[in-house]
Amino acid sequence: MAVRTIEVRERVMAKNDELAAEVRRRLGEHRVPALNLVSGPGSGKTLLLERTLERLGPEMRIAVVTGDVQTQNDADRLARHTDRLVQAVVTGGACHLDARQVGSALEAIDLDDTDLLFIENVGNLVCPASWDLGEAAKVVLFSVTEGEDKPAKYPKMFRESRYCVLTKVDLLPYVPFDLVLAERTAREVNPGLTFFHTSARTGEGLDGWFDFLRAQVNASRPT
Amino acid sequence: MAVRTIEVRERVMAKNDELAAEVRRRLGEHRVPALNLVSGPGSGKTLLLERTLERLGPEMRIAVVTGDVQTQNDADRLARHTDRLVQAVVTGGACHLDARQVGSALEAIDLDDTDLLFIENVGNLVCPASWDLGEAAKVVLFSVTEGEDKPAKYPKMFRESRYCVLTKVDLLPYVPFDLVLAERTAREVNPGLTFFHTSARTGEGLDGWFDFLRAQVNASRPT
Repeated sequence: MAVRTIEVRERVMAKNDELAAEVRRRLGEHRVPALNLVSGPGSGKTLLLERTLERLGPEMRIAVVTGDVQTQNDADRLARHTDRLVQAVVTGGACHLDARQVGSALEAIDLDDTDLLFIENVGNLVCPASWDLGEAAKVVLFSVTEGEDKPAKYPKMFRESRYCVLTKVDLLPYVPFDLVLAERTAREVNPGLTFFHTSARTGEGLDGWFDFLRAQVNASRPT
Repeated sequence: MAVRTIEVRERVMAKNDELAAEVRRRLGEHRVPALNLVSGPGSGKTLLLERTLERLGPEMRIAVVTGDVQTQNDADRLARHTDRLVQAVVTGGACHLDARQVGSALEAIDLDDTDLLFIENVGNLVCPASWDLGEAAKVVLFSVTEGEDKPAKYPKMFRESRYCVLTKVDLLPYVPFDLVLAERTAREVNPGLTFFHTSARTGEGLDGWFDFLRAQVNASRPT
């Protein structure tokens, strides 16, 4: 019984990997860098995207695929900040996006008219770590209200991510959060992580994030 | 293929329900009320339990089963506040506790010497909603740093819970969080929810939580 469950799971994951490879091939063909934003609930993925669309929307063509368990709340919030299509995927109770859902969402997006793609995953620090969506990189968000130990407790997510955005740094004076310890804990899990310190409310640290995104887009343009 | 996955999942869930019924029967036999604490990562489950053990440890016998994806961090933190055994369950990457794990953990706990059992679930607002652990009630924690829309976005968890502990209310002056809206959103999903407003850092609102726990224990004692 247990064995059979594992077999089925392995086949589901293998199928997902195939579909993710196909998504990655399509994105590569159109030279669209794709970032998969992952975090626990309420870490600030949507607000970071709102600020990003506001600031960078006038200088690059940004597409968004956003996944939510039950509502279209995030898609509705994002749509206020862009004239471009925001593709909503309601997972109907599932705890992560999969490559099939992203592949379907891309059908509605003109990749020739896109410089940068964000995939906003379901708020969950466990399950999305195991699902390749064909992205160029995972970006894990981590709020200073959550405690420094999160990278040790959810190591797979921090290991699978290339970038780590610390959010809500405007709250640092009011919470017992040690930034140095948090980064050290994250680097123990993944020494290659690059960090951003941001507050989407005050704007602190966002310029570094925007410059990083500009560099991603420039690097993927034909020379 | 999809059909077969669902079949296997249904059988796994049915088996879990059987095991949860067995856990519930054992707890009932020993008159031990059990609360299953659920929330996203970093909402403050462990800190609330630390405060609870400190305050109520001298007046009642509290047992804890705590689940973590990868570490024993939470168990180690809790063990500092009690002489009693804290049972750690490391789920090895799984995104929730199941009834089998709780049943095994109970083997190490003398239920005749226990007035109240806490089960601290994995930090995840999606998956633990679907797994009955044999608890008397689920208690969902929800931090004021997470945004008022969480109950709408993760409705199953708020529907399955009987109590909702709003945490970190000491941060209310610094975050754009509308307490009235948050409760209204939660009640739309589950009109029967009972709320607590707490800050484990400042102690605000904890007396109401402690009184609630005393009442749970008194209600389960033989008359």
